[in-house]
Amino acid sequence: MASETTRVVVLGTGQMGSGVMRMVLAKRDLELVGAFGRRADRAGLDIADAIGLSSPLGLLLDGDLATLLERTRPHVAVQATCSTLVDAEGEIATCVEHEVPVVSIAEELAWPWAASESWAARMDALAAAHGVGIIGTGVNPGFVLDLLVVALTAVCEDVEAITATRVNDLAPYGPTVVRSQGVGLSPEAFQAGLADGSVVGHIGFPQSIAMLAHALDWPIERVEETREPIISAVERSTPFVTVHPGQVAGCLHTATGYCNGAPVITLRHPQQIHPESEGIATGDSIELAGTPPVRVTTSPEIPGGIATVALAVNVIPRLLTARPGLRTMLDLPPAAALPREGIFRG
Amino acid sequence: MASETTRVVVLGTGQMGSGVMRMVLAKRDLELVGAFGRRADRAGLDIADAIGLSSPLGLLLDGDLATLLERTRPHVAVQATCSTLVDAEGEIATCVEHEVPVVSIAEELAWPWAASESWAARMDALAAAHGVGIIGTGVNPGFVLDLLVVALTAVCEDVEAITATRVNDLAPYGPTVVRSQGVGLSPEAFQAGLADGSVVGHIGFPQSIAMLAHALDWPIERVEETREPIISAVERSTPFVTVHPGQVAGCLHTATGYCNGAPVITLRHPQQIHPESEGIATGDSIELAGTPPVRVTTSPEIPGGIATVALAVNVIPRLLTARPGLRTMLDLPPAAALPREGIFRG
Repeated sequence: MASETTRVVVLGTGQMGSGVMRMVLAKRDLELVGAFGRRADRAGLDIADAIGLSSPLGLLLDGDLATLLERTRPHVAVQATCSTLVDAEGEIATCVEHEVPVVSIAEELAWPWAASESWAARMDALAAAHGVGIIGTGVNPGFVLDLLVVALTAVCEDVEAITATRVNDLAPYGPTVVRSQGVGLSPEAFQAGLADGSVVGHIGFPQSIAMLAHALDWPIERVEETREPIISAVERSTPFVTVHPGQVAGCLHTATGYCNGAPVITLRHPQQIHPESEGIATGDSIELAGTPPVRVTTSPEIPGGIATVALAVNVIPRLLTARPGLRTMLDLPPAAALPREGIFRG
Repeated sequence: MASETTRVVVLGTGQMGSGVMRMVLAKRDLELVGAFGRRADRAGLDIADAIGLSSPLGLLLDGDLATLLERTRPHVAVQATCSTLVDAEGEIATCVEHEVPVVSIAEELAWPWAASESWAARMDALAAAHGVGIIGTGVNPGFVLDLLVVALTAVCEDVEAITATRVNDLAPYGPTVVRSQGVGLSPEAFQAGLADGSVVGHIGFPQSIAMLAHALDWPIERVEETREPIISAVERSTPFVTVHPGQVAGCLHTATGYCNGAPVITLRHPQQIHPESEGIATGDSIELAGTPPVRVTTSPEIPGGIATVALAVNVIPRLLTARPGLRTMLDLPPAAALPREGIFRG
């Protein structure tokens, strides 16, 4: 079917923002009309340089969001600049006040009520007043340990408990990520890092559990999170870190949601470098205890960065026809991979 | 959150209709208010007897659908009486004319345009005129080889081809099902059965491929279906059939969708009794060739009967808030398992 072109601006020129821009450029029905970067010194750079393309695009990176929106009049903005509601709010409000709907990959946007009910109420009202939608998405939180789980429960007459595990490999990541999981620390330094906040584990479990609880109408009374060091028995290394036997290869982060004192949702995310060095394969697994029991696995795991970029772009048409306000992935019909330029046409 | 009770009538008292009724009875926010059976001689039977419950429900099976709808004033009807659009139409039209939305598990309803564009247009107009929705659902077609595949494509920047396989075991099924797959026939009789229509294979591939093609906006130019006998190397038997070595244990049904001469969608559904007797495990698998590649498996397969019942019931709240007209699972936000009576409350 023929579709009108959707004009997209992208906020953020890091790895995620660059990925979103490259994907928008590749899609038949999307047009990249501009990009905003927070670093004022990069304003005026051709977007191609900012995202690592060899030929110039003739589109310049903008350092002022309102000006960009007024000049380009986009149909939608994709935000890839931050992780928290507080950090995301200013840019989202600017877009909404220009009547531009927003897709955000900020982790806390996957289920905004988990971090702040008042933020969610305020932004819902703002978006509704301007007649546009706001949605958060991403692979985790946002898909593997929550939305996909919800979708699978539809085949169950009854679900009694949910266990989902995501095993990934941090070896491709840079120093910021590996540090945040305590890679290369001694067990003692790992515990100190947890205490001082330098070792954080996964960001997103409260969002995933809240989404599951809402979808299933389960009255979760409390959520417990634990972060344990994954002690390596062998030497493992990346360009940024070497882990000796007895040191920490990563962080096993677990979140458990309880109803009536019983653990009914258990989400596990061991993040480490080179899990295969101790015979552990990467992958996602979802187990629903219920009628019928359901067990789904992906092998390897659905990869983090690229899947988050894809979700942010693929959800665009669904957001544009959604009811205005603060939406979640539970409100929208399933997003699907958008057709690329020249799909199956030689 | 507190919800009002949704009043449900069920059409059909076979295995699927009975399952739907038992599930409605178990759900906190659903109330079974009546049931319709096509067999006039069963009218007046307590529904408990019709569906195999030990204590009477005080609800009598109805042989006249219009009377049932007028007396019970349900919020929704679930149809489990038939497989085809033609066979489903009269009952659906009666419900819609009484302003009762309909969930149907008729296989052809999963994507009605595949079997008849004119039926779909007519029923869409009728439903829209009466302000109610009609939707088809089920595990296959309707979920494992289509809706779940679509949902997974959302994590892909690009999808080049889809391969999905569903391996199940027909041993629990009765004589009608095993006959329709050619179980127990000689290879020659299997071919004759294909020719005379007594061996049919799977019902639903045109619906699944059309749903995938629509979701991905892929211009499928033709669909090829093949049905091959699965010749057993060993003896396999059920209470209804014995298969000797060299005879047919089931039917491998494959459907392939082509774009520009290339096979881009391949769906396979080998249905046989006791696949484990030759070392084959049951399960569903979905492979997306693309960026990133995605490989998802279920082990064992999501079971057919119970999952179809569950989907039909779990989609009810989603249908009741959908836009009126003929809808599909692609139009609705993800259905989730509905809470049972007394969930997590002692």
